[in-house]
Amino acid sequence: MHEDVKNPAPDPRALRVVVAPDSFKGSATASQVAAALAAGARAALGDGADVRSVPFADGGEGTLDAILGAWGEAGRTCDTTDALGRPATARFGVSPDGRTLAVEAAEAYGLPQVSDVPLRPLDATSHGVGTLVLAALDAVPDAEEVVLFVGGSATTDGGAGLLDALGARLLDAAGAPVPPGGGGLRDLARVDLAGLDPRARALRWRIACDVDNPLLGPRGAAAVFGPQKGATPQDVAALDSGLARLADALAAATGHDARDVPGAGASGGLPVGLSAAFGAELVPGGELVADVVGLAAALVGADLVITGEGRLDEQSLHGKVVDTVVRLVAGRAAVVVVAGGVELTPAQVADAGIAAAFSLAPGPRTLAELSRDAVTELERTAAHACRLFAAGRAAR
Amino acid sequence: MHEDVKNPAPDPRALRVVVAPDSFKGSATASQVAAALAAGARAALGDGADVRSVPFADGGEGTLDAILGAWGEAGRTCDTTDALGRPATARFGVSPDGRTLAVEAAEAYGLPQVSDVPLRPLDATSHGVGTLVLAALDAVPDAEEVVLFVGGSATTDGGAGLLDALGARLLDAAGAPVPPGGGGLRDLARVDLAGLDPRARALRWRIACDVDNPLLGPRGAAAVFGPQKGATPQDVAALDSGLARLADALAAATGHDARDVPGAGASGGLPVGLSAAFGAELVPGGELVADVVGLAAALVGADLVITGEGRLDEQSLHGKVVDTVVRLVAGRAAVVVVAGGVELTPAQVADAGIAAAFSLAPGPRTLAELSRDAVTELERTAAHACRLFAAGRAAR
Repeated sequence: MHEDVKNPAPDPRALRVVVAPDSFKGSATASQVAAALAAGARAALGDGADVRSVPFADGGEGTLDAILGAWGEAGRTCDTTDALGRPATARFGVSPDGRTLAVEAAEAYGLPQVSDVPLRPLDATSHGVGTLVLAALDAVPDAEEVVLFVGGSATTDGGAGLLDALGARLLDAAGAPVPPGGGGLRDLARVDLAGLDPRARALRWRIACDVDNPLLGPRGAAAVFGPQKGATPQDVAALDSGLARLADALAAATGHDARDVPGAGASGGLPVGLSAAFGAELVPGGELVADVVGLAAALVGADLVITGEGRLDEQSLHGKVVDTVVRLVAGRAAVVVVAGGVELTPAQVADAGIAAAFSLAPGPRTLAELSRDAVTELERTAAHACRLFAAGRAAR
Repeated sequence: MHEDVKNPAPDPRALRVVVAPDSFKGSATASQVAAALAAGARAALGDGADVRSVPFADGGEGTLDAILGAWGEAGRTCDTTDALGRPATARFGVSPDGRTLAVEAAEAYGLPQVSDVPLRPLDATSHGVGTLVLAALDAVPDAEEVVLFVGGSATTDGGAGLLDALGARLLDAAGAPVPPGGGGLRDLARVDLAGLDPRARALRWRIACDVDNPLLGPRGAAAVFGPQKGATPQDVAALDSGLARLADALAAATGHDARDVPGAGASGGLPVGLSAAFGAELVPGGELVADVVGLAAALVGADLVITGEGRLDEQSLHGKVVDTVVRLVAGRAAVVVVAGGVELTPAQVADAGIAAAFSLAPGPRTLAELSRDAVTELERTAAHACRLFAAGRAAR
């Protein structure tokens, strides 16, 4: 018995599709990708199909855009400073219910934002991230939590700058404030948290973190990530020593020592300060985004889930968007990946729990052409994938 | 209710896939393409799946290779002559049951084979095609039919050369044989078919034909196709006049006048001679190939049919392989097209009765790269398509 495949979904209302893609770096934001995939699915399946769009991200660059897209909210802009203390603007997001603040810290302390001048790894500070959080709290005083996406930092200050911005005092032996940046921690004698903003204390803090490096030593923040921020071997030794002093001072002030927590070495040691001061939790980036955008709820009852990213390769299967989606789906729906490039074999794709992976390339094309036409080709590829899935579903 | 998509075919024995692709010109023969698609399907669906491979063609270049592939037979080689009478070798095919001979006439009278010298449209002759048929009959005297794929000819002789080779006499008013080629027909007074090879007379003749041009006049063989074979306007007039004389002589000899039959003007008028002498039928190329390779029988009970060609575009939907496959399937299975380039929109693909179309490109690639890797990428793309179809089938 075969149905007519020209009308592949005899009961299209019953077919439920969720699109949850990453951004295609350099081509389209997660929201644009999701909109294109959803348009393709709707065009293929007709008005009766239930197609939900959840722009997604892994916690790295573009995460705030994805969250804003999923929330259907515009980003809010505030004044802050960059990693070198120069005036800057940065965005934050507020969930529709006003309970959650989302911050992509790189907007305030990112390495690209200070690449116009020679790198100054000892001076770079997370102070602007604190200013950003304060601005968000001024805008939404009743917020209950903040989620912080922390990749791409120019800093190795253990979050000292952020704590300073939020009211802590970082003092030398004479009781004077230490200079900003990881280099300034060489003089640190103690930390006074009494002046911390009470709204910041009341928040639940969660930090997206995908590395397991400790704060100090050969696998620590300075040794592993310092060089890419411009640190010489001498700088690395100074920064590592300064971070140790900060950890000592925070432990003395709070009784909480996070230096050996896996991930404490992420983002120039930011988690150490946040953990001690606010009890911040470290969460894998994809899981944190999934929680914030409500992906698990959107997936309930889905038949087909379309995700995607610029390039599907070995990395995709380890903590990235595709991996997170596959794990959340957990075999309850078919997962299709649409990518600019599919660099895994069908066996690798199948072993990863992915039903199928397709490139958006419609034929021989350059990378520049695919990037230019990404939205059109995403819509096209999603349409074909949906129709084939529906045809399979119609084949009893 | 959802099945685990990691094992998408709960009863893989019940899933029946037929692969019936065209060749990818310049990259892979139809047999190579079919083998790659079938390998991908088997890898995706496991040993329990029923995957049938039917290399296919539209009657044009590569048709003999496709038929040999579908038959599982090697081509047989014989000595003949090219369109200018020079020694040449050509192949023919014999069906496994020995009943059917397949001839791709271009191997004996093709334009490319005589492109090493200036074109001689008045001299070019179909004699070598007759020699080829004779050789096939010598090898398989009990053959019951011959299917003739006739595109790409250098000739405009109405099949006079072929008839001569098979024992007919084409005579001038003085009773002497006329010179070979369409130009020689200027002297034709009568045709004597008494000496025609009785085995050739006993055969059923079918000619693949995808044009509807009559033999003569402004839409005829000389006017429309002569120029691409090198005919000047004067040559066209001479050839048209010669073909008229041949039609007159054949009508006088047989009582059968095929000059106005749609398609009589194909292949330099070859159908006119074959129709008069042997009652040859003109059949659309794709249908003739489908009949010879048993595609309709292979399609019975299929759930998924994978076809493909180098480029899926508007032309594909008119008499080409994809069009023929879609019409034979007639909505009883889902049709997927795998192509080097997909140049139709999803709506056009859907309107054509195709469930989905995918390029074999795994990402940004040049045409040369896709051509080089065609077999690997065909296998890969077929695997993904089969798994997605199976996942849809598993989603109840």
